[in-house]
Amino acid sequence: MTKTRLEAFSDGVIAIIITIMVIELRAPHNSDWESLKELWPVFLSYIVSFTMLGIYWGNHHHLIHTIKEVRGGILWANLHLLFWLSLIPFATAWMGENHFSSNTVATYAFLADLCGVAYYILLIVIRNCNPGNEKLQAVLKRQFRKGLFSCIIYTLAIPASFIHPAIAGGLIITIAIIWLVPDRNIERTIQED
Amino acid sequence: MTKTRLEAFSDGVIAIIITIMVIELRAPHNSDWESLKELWPVFLSYIVSFTMLGIYWGNHHHLIHTIKEVRGGILWANLHLLFWLSLIPFATAWMGENHFSSNTVATYAFLADLCGVAYYILLIVIRNCNPGNEKLQAVLKRQFRKGLFSCIIYTLAIPASFIHPAIAGGLIITIAIIWLVPDRNIERTIQED
Amino acid sequence: MTKTRLEAFSDGVIAIIITIMVIELRAPHNSDWESLKELWPVFLSYIVSFTMLGIYWGNHHHLIHTIKEVRGGILWANLHLLFWLSLIPFATAWMGENHFSSNTVATYAFLADLCGVAYYILLIVIRNCNPGNEKLQAVLKRQFRKGLFSCIIYTLAIPASFIHPAIAGGLIITIAIIWLVPDRNIERTIQED
Amino acid sequence: MTKTRLEAFSDGVIAIIITIMVIELRAPHNSDWESLKELWPVFLSYIVSFTMLGIYWGNHHHLIHTIKEVRGGILWANLHLLFWLSLIPFATAWMGENHFSSNTVATYAFLADLCGVAYYILLIVIRNCNPGNEKLQAVLKRQFRKGLFSCIIYTLAIPASFIHPAIAGGLIITIAIIWLVPDRNIERTIQED
Repeated sequence: MTKTRLEAFSDGVIAIIITIMVIELRAPHNSDWESLKELWPVFLSYIVSFTMLGIYWGNHHHLIHTIKEVRGGILWANLHLLFWLSLIPFATAWMGENHFSSNTVATYAFLADLCGVAYYILLIVIRNCNPGNEKLQAVLKRQFRKGLFSCIIYTLAIPASFIHPAIAGGLIITIAIIWLVPDRNIERTIQED
Repeated sequence: MTKTRLEAFSDGVIAIIITIMVIELRAPHNSDWESLKELWPVFLSYIVSFTMLGIYWGNHHHLIHTIKEVRGGILWANLHLLFWLSLIPFATAWMGENHFSSNTVATYAFLADLCGVAYYILLIVIRNCNPGNEKLQAVLKRQFRKGLFSCIIYTLAIPASFIHPAIAGGLIITIAIIWLVPDRNIERTIQED
Repeated sequence: MTKTRLEAFSDGVIAIIITIMVIELRAPHNSDWESLKELWPVFLSYIVSFTMLGIYWGNHHHLIHTIKEVRGGILWANLHLLFWLSLIPFATAWMGENHFSSNTVATYAFLADLCGVAYYILLIVIRNCNPGNEKLQAVLKRQFRKGLFSCIIYTLAIPASFIHPAIAGGLIITIAIIWLVPDRNIERTIQED
Repeated sequence: MTKTRLEAFSDGVIAIIITIMVIELRAPHNSDWESLKELWPVFLSYIVSFTMLGIYWGNHHHLIHTIKEVRGGILWANLHLLFWLSLIPFATAWMGENHFSSNTVATYAFLADLCGVAYYILLIVIRNCNPGNEKLQAVLKRQFRKGLFSCIIYTLAIPASFIHPAIAGGLIITIAIIWLVPDRNIERTIQED
C-alpha cells in the first residue's frame, strides 16, 4: 500500500515537472518560419530535459519495483530527489532563453549533479532499509557505479562549460545515452522472480 | 504492477497536457462580447486538441488493457509517444494565436503525423514483446490499418494547408471522427475474455 | 481495472483543473494590503469554482463507485464532462478579472449549465450501460432530480445576471450548497452492500 | 476502494501544488550571475513551501494509512485542507517577490495557520468516524498535540513578522523541523500490525 502511494506521488510529480516545461515553449506571435526557428535553443533544452526526466522516471520505476519495505527514511530521500528534479524546468528555461551561454549550461550541469547526488542518497537509504534483499543489493551495486560515474561527469561539465558550452552539453548528453540503455540487470533479476 | 504504473504515468502526463492547454485560454481584460469572440480560433484549436488527446487516451487505455507483459522497450516507446503529445499544447497555441495561418496549420499536421508515427512504433514494440497473445495480434492488425491511414492523411494535410488551411483542418478533423468511433473490435475481444 | 483507470484519469484532470486556477491568482507586485484587497473578486471566484469542482469530484466519486461495468460510451461521456469542466478556470479568470460584470457572470452560469448537462448525459449513459443494477437505479433517480434542478437554476441565472450579477451569483452558490449536502442515499446504499 | 481514491486525489492535488510553484521561478532574461542572485528570496520561499507541502504529504499519508472507514465527512474535511494548501503557491510568490516584507510574511504565517487548523479539523473528523480503532486514537493524540502546538506558533508568527520578518521566518522553519522528524509512533503502530 505504502509503496503504491510512493510510486503514485513520484509519478505525479515527475509527470507534472515534465509537462510544466511545455509552458516555457511559448508560441511566437508571428506565424513565419523565422520566429519558429529562433526557438531552437528552447526546443533543444526541452528535449534534453524531457529525456533526463524520462530516464529518472524509468530508473526510479525499476528501483522501487525491487524494494519490499518502505520506511520514513525512503519517503524523505525520495522527496529530496523530487525537490532537485523540480528545479529542472527552471534551469532548462534559463539555458534555453539565453542560447546556452556558459553560465546557464554550468548551472544546468550543477543541477544535474545535485539530482544525481540525491538519487545516490536514495540508493543508499534504500539499501540500508532492505538489508536482507540480496537481489536488490546486486542491482544496487550496478546503479551505484553508474550513478557515481554520472556525478563525476556532471562535475567535470561545470568547468567545461566555461571552455565551451558545447563540451558540457556533449558530456550531459553522453550520460543520458548511458542511462537510456535499459538496465538489463534489473530486468533480468525481476524476470527471474 | 509494472503495467499499472505505466498506465498511471501515461494518464498523468496526458491529463496534464490536456489541462495545460487551458492556460493558453487567457481571459481577456475586457468584459464585452467582442473580446470573447476574438478568441474563437484559440477555442477551436483547443477543442480539436482536447479531442485528439482524449482519443489517444482512450485508445492507449484499450491498448495497454490487452497486453500482458511490459518490457523496457515498451516503456521507452511509450515515453517517445508522450514526448510528441507533449508538444501539442505548443502547436495548438501557435495555431490559435495566428488564426490558423498556413504555416501553423502545416506544423500542427506535421506534429499530428509524428504523434501518429510514435503510436505506430508503440504498436510494433508491443506486438514484438507479446508474441503469444493472439487476441492482441488480431486487435493490433486493425489499429495498424487505422494508424497507417491516419499518418497518410496527416502527411497529405501538410501541403494541403498551403493551398488552404481549411482543407488541412478538415482532414485533421476527419481523422478525429474516424478514431472517435470506438474500436468495437477491442471491446468485443475484451468482453470475450 | 478499466474502472480504476477511469477514476484515476478523471481524478487527475479534476485535480489539475482545480490547481491550475491558482496560477490565475497572480501575486501583486506591491506588498501593501491595498493591492491584496484588490484581488477579492479573483479570490471569491476561485472559492466558488474550487467548491464547484470539489462537488463534482465528490459526486463523480460516489457515482463511479456504484457502477459495475464500464463501456466505451461511459468513457466518452466522461471525457465530454471533463471538457466542460476544463473551461471553468477560463470562465473563473474572466469573471474575477472583470469584477463580476454581467457578461462574465452570465458566461459562468452558462458554462455551469453545460457542465450540469454533461453530468446529466453521463448519468443517462451509465444508467443504460448498467440495466440490472437496481441500487444504482435508485441512486440515479435522486441524482437526476438534483441535476435537472441545477440546470434549471443555472439557466435562470443567465438572464438574472443582466438584472444584477449578484442575483446570478446567489443562485450559483445556492446550487453549490444543495450539492454540498452529501448524498446520504448513495452512502446508505453503499453501506448496505 | 474509496480510500485509494481519496489518497490518489490528495496526492494529485499536493503534487500539482508543489510543482506549480516552479512556474513562479521565472528564468531571468540575462545569463549573468547577478540576475540569478536576485532570485534568492523566490528560491528561499520555494524551499520553505516545498518542505511544508512535503511534510503535509508525508503526514497525510501516515494518517490515511491508519484509518479503515472513509465517510463523506472525511472527503469534505480533506477537500477543505486541500483548499488552504492550494493557496500556498500564491502566498509563496507574494512573499518571494516582495523580499519577505512584513505584510507578506504575516500573510504566509496566517495561511500556514489556516492549513494547520484545516488539518486539525481533518483529524477530529477522522477520529469521530473511526471510534473503534484504538491504535488510530493513540496516534491521533500525538498528532493533536503537535498540530495544536504548530497552530499556536503560527499564530505568534503573525505579529512577530511586524517586529522583524526574520523572527516569523524562524518560527515557521522551526515548526517544519519539528514535523520533519518522522512520527515514529505511527510507524511503530503500523509495523505492529
